Amino acid sequence: MTTDRWSDGAAGPRGRGRPRDPGVDAAILKAALELFVEGGVEAASMQRIAARAGVGKLTVYRRWSSKEELLAQAIESARENLPEVTAEDVEHVPVAELVERAIPATADALAEPGFRAFAAQTLGTSVTHPALMAAYWEHYVLPRRRAIRVMLERAIRDGVLSTDTDVEALIDMMVGAMIYRVLHPPVPDSAELRDYLRSVYRLAGLLP
Amino acid sequence: MTTDRWSDGAAGPRGRGRPRDPGVDAAILKAALELFVEGGVEAASMQRIAARAGVGKLTVYRRWSSKEELLAQAIESARENLPEVTAEDVEHVPVAELVERAIPATADALAEPGFRAFAAQTLGTSVTHPALMAAYWEHYVLPRRRAIRVMLERAIRDGVLSTDTDVEALIDMMVGAMIYRVLHPPVPDSAELRDYLRSVYRLAGLLP
Repeated sequence: MTTDRWSDGAAGPRGRGRPRDPGVDAAILKAALELFVEGGVEAASMQRIAARAGVGKLTVYRRWSSKEELLAQAIESARENLPEVTAEDVEHVPVAELVERAIPATADALAEPGFRAFAAQTLGTSVTHPALMAAYWEHYVLPRRRAIRVMLERAIRDGVLSTDTDVEALIDMMVGAMIYRVLHPPVPDSAELRDYLRSVYRLAGLLP
Repeated sequence: MTTDRWSDGAAGPRGRGRPRDPGVDAAILKAALELFVEGGVEAASMQRIAARAGVGKLTVYRRWSSKEELLAQAIESARENLPEVTAEDVEHVPVAELVERAIPATADALAEPGFRAFAAQTLGTSVTHPALMAAYWEHYVLPRRRAIRVMLERAIRDGVLSTDTDVEALIDMMVGAMIYRVLHPPVPDSAELRDYLRSVYRLAGLLP
């Protein structure tokens, strides 16, 4: 355990400046995600998460003040494979090229059974556990939507999209289609999803 | 109970030509939907459905051979308020007008808490209970997608959409956006959804 890494007081979700063992954090997040994907929010109690991670309940509570915060971060850890667009990229690379570049990794990530399972469970919680959806939305989805928004605003400046484009609705159409597609039959594989993503981006006006 | 209505052997989901009391059917469907929306597939056992509907378990099994079939129809009954486009309409009314006409009722239906709840539960089941999603998809979603497809094909013939439009992906983008929008915060009301739907249809190229 290294104490100096966390001495600035910005130590993770709770910000208490406690020394943290990243191995323990990872084990807790993994256990939380597994339980959530297997059985939803009900199945993922702090007690069960601690038991599966092989740590005490207090160890979990020291790191996350609520099950919702922990689950929001655990859910996010399942999305790590989704490619991200950096501000640097948006500045220097044309939108069509950025989109084309991201297609293979996005298709692979969407095709994973784990992604489908947690997307299904996450959407399933939005009505039954709005606090979880709110935490997930605020901490993890909104920052990414802002990044996509910057890219679409560049597309507007470049004349790729028209100036009256409703950017938020367009993001919903692209993201909504991807999530909906992997949750309805027949389940697509990665190759089918590459073609599908190309169609979606073309319909969105981002690919020629 | 009227027997003549069902004497043609096409008596409802099981097709056994049994006399049917529509009041009993409605009570069973209502009970199934309530239990499903409250607690998902697990909570909606045939036994509990029968108990809430005030009928015997056998009465339920006589009408639906499986919980999946019953739940698929129950889920569909919650969507009854969504407006449908008839073949007649598609033949005679321009697409932009059809879409514009459907906006108020669609916005009202999407804004209902009941719609959000069952959309969340239905998507939540797609991984955990694929048989339910498959039944729902085949019997209820596909026929509607075919109707939308006919409308979009007319839009292509009319030159409203380009001839190389990927119609299935476009349907996913519109439907996916609507479902995604009502499941993410902040929850929109009916007036906001009318504006939202207009944006979506405009981005899809169906409204000017």
